[in-house]
Amino acid sequence: MVDRRRITPVILSGGSGTRLWPLSRSSTPKQFLRLTDKRTMFQLTVERARDPGRFAGPIVVANAAHADLVEDQLAEIGVRPEAIILEPVGRNTAPAIAVAALAADPAALLLVMPSDHVITDPEAFREAIEALVPFVEDGWLATFGIEADAPHTGYGYIRRGRRLAPGVNAVDRFVEKPDHKTAIQYLHEGGYSWNGGIFLFSAGYYLDALERSDPAILAAARQSMDGRLEEGVRVFPNPRAFAAAPSNSIDYAVMERADRVAVAPVAMGWSDVGSWDALHELADTDENGNAIEGEVRAFDVNNSLIRSEGPVVAAIGISNLILIATDDAVLVMPRGQSQHVKRAIEALKGENHATLDSFSRRVVTSA
Amino acid sequence: MVDRRRITPVILSGGSGTRLWPLSRSSTPKQFLRLTDKRTMFQLTVERARDPGRFAGPIVVANAAHADLVEDQLAEIGVRPEAIILEPVGRNTAPAIAVAALAADPAALLLVMPSDHVITDPEAFREAIEALVPFVEDGWLATFGIEADAPHTGYGYIRRGRRLAPGVNAVDRFVEKPDHKTAIQYLHEGGYSWNGGIFLFSAGYYLDALERSDPAILAAARQSMDGRLEEGVRVFPNPRAFAAAPSNSIDYAVMERADRVAVAPVAMGWSDVGSWDALHELADTDENGNAIEGEVRAFDVNNSLIRSEGPVVAAIGISNLILIATDDAVLVMPRGQSQHVKRAIEALKGENHATLDSFSRRVVTSA
Repeated sequence: MVDRRRITPVILSGGSGTRLWPLSRSSTPKQFLRLTDKRTMFQLTVERARDPGRFAGPIVVANAAHADLVEDQLAEIGVRPEAIILEPVGRNTAPAIAVAALAADPAALLLVMPSDHVITDPEAFREAIEALVPFVEDGWLATFGIEADAPHTGYGYIRRGRRLAPGVNAVDRFVEKPDHKTAIQYLHEGGYSWNGGIFLFSAGYYLDALERSDPAILAAARQSMDGRLEEGVRVFPNPRAFAAAPSNSIDYAVMERADRVAVAPVAMGWSDVGSWDALHELADTDENGNAIEGEVRAFDVNNSLIRSEGPVVAAIGISNLILIATDDAVLVMPRGQSQHVKRAIEALKGENHATLDSFSRRVVTSA
Repeated sequence: MVDRRRITPVILSGGSGTRLWPLSRSSTPKQFLRLTDKRTMFQLTVERARDPGRFAGPIVVANAAHADLVEDQLAEIGVRPEAIILEPVGRNTAPAIAVAALAADPAALLLVMPSDHVITDPEAFREAIEALVPFVEDGWLATFGIEADAPHTGYGYIRRGRRLAPGVNAVDRFVEKPDHKTAIQYLHEGGYSWNGGIFLFSAGYYLDALERSDPAILAAARQSMDGRLEEGVRVFPNPRAFAAAPSNSIDYAVMERADRVAVAPVAMGWSDVGSWDALHELADTDENGNAIEGEVRAFDVNNSLIRSEGPVVAAIGISNLILIATDDAVLVMPRGQSQHVKRAIEALKGENHATLDSFSRRVVTSA
């Protein structure tokens, strides 16, 4: 079903984060937004592994609620997927990758990518892929190590072990999201990379490793795919069987327990765009340090991120501010505070606020 | 036509300011907004001179475009006006007051009030009115002197002359809006009040004084009222005749040139609410110094003015900010900068931006 010589991208699109509220909503999470480019983050992820000389069509694993979005956004960039596997419920990454691996040829190499990350240096990414290929063909499970250049407490860390080849190390160990003190220690010590959640391995070796480390996940995934429904490229695993899979990440369920795990430490301009601050850092800014999108009129504005998806925004005399406006919601905060967006989100969740789910569709007529 | 013993309020509602954009628009200027109270500033002005033992029904002079607004807002508070005189074009205050004076009995005392000012101590205002009554019955023209407690350059100043009675002085002279240095000098010198644009005089004496100082205005006003059309309480001066009146303020055309002009210096919590900063100063603030209206969720927010007329606003970790959100426009600036709103307004005027004229009417449906 999948070309043996080519790498099959497996694009994980299960996320429904609201950290970029009010733009991201459960109906249109971050990966489907045009945040850093005219293309959405999902589309950019697909484009990153599109070279037909090297990559097969992607297998997308997505929330069933986003089936149309996935299909439309693929069509918009002219990409025909191998399959769009639609999860009835989210069970984290280990089961999601398992159903993708079951849909692929056991010998196929799978490049697993979250759909909501940015990589500004795709060439470096491609080089890291090529450095890893001989190992994953030999049965190693591989991950990509993001250069840890700050004591970030939001990522898992990978301690690099012995060098296997240029640009490839064995993984010494995975460590969980550290506290700030530990993160500073890792940075000081050196030899650590962030775990960016991007993986390369053959479908068969992944399934073998999963069978050894978390067989209940494999059994549920297999049963759900045996009972699948197919409609064109859309694949619906049996919902009851899929829902029976333990919810676990590939890191915990497989990578941390497998024997031969390699890491390619790579500086590729990676970002998970996990906050509005991160987006401001990624954005092309004007001569005043502003990243401005939409109908915005700025006067004496510096180092600010201002986006409007609807209303005209007039900003006067402000610095270091983040302001995001949509037709039904406005977020305002200083730069450096965007980790606190979750407080607003939690409050709105407590009220079942409509702006978390979807955009109001408004018919605008002049009064 | 007007009860001789009672004072007739003349409410000037010609303004179409946009300094409180995006709430104030040319279709709904400041006086028709609910800024400081559940009632609009126009309604508060009417209520201020409503005591039937002392006041007759008001004569309202308004822009013809606002006829329905005026009538609706009067009906909402159950006030029946003597007349609503609808100007076809704005010609400043001298002609507006002239048509009101012509509609009134010559012996009627007119209390002329802009409709977009706030007076937080109406009792002090009432006392100042009573102190002036004997003088205006005797033919004086009177004005109310606002306590000048800052070197404001946006108001005209009145230099007080000799004391005529408790709470009443002769006016020594009117002086135009000063520069900052001169304003500081006035404050230091003492003896000055701000000219708040509120006046008391008999209709006949005003018309007499106007005839002496600017007869062209009186002639045009008289001709426009002779050729008026009446529809219920609505009075339409002849548009061509009215438009022929020179555009001039009562200050320049009459008060500065009249012989017997009195001032009642009064501390009555007056504000012309000329900016968002002024509104924040007037507003009831919560324990964090915030004035918040509408669907706003604030976290670690201090000393800020946040109003929403539509979208939900989430504000996180901000201080001293002004944010005004409507369905089609958002204004954001630090406190103390609201004099710069005009820069945004000028830019939007240059584009004939729809948000200056009227609100978009939106039909909201869940997507």
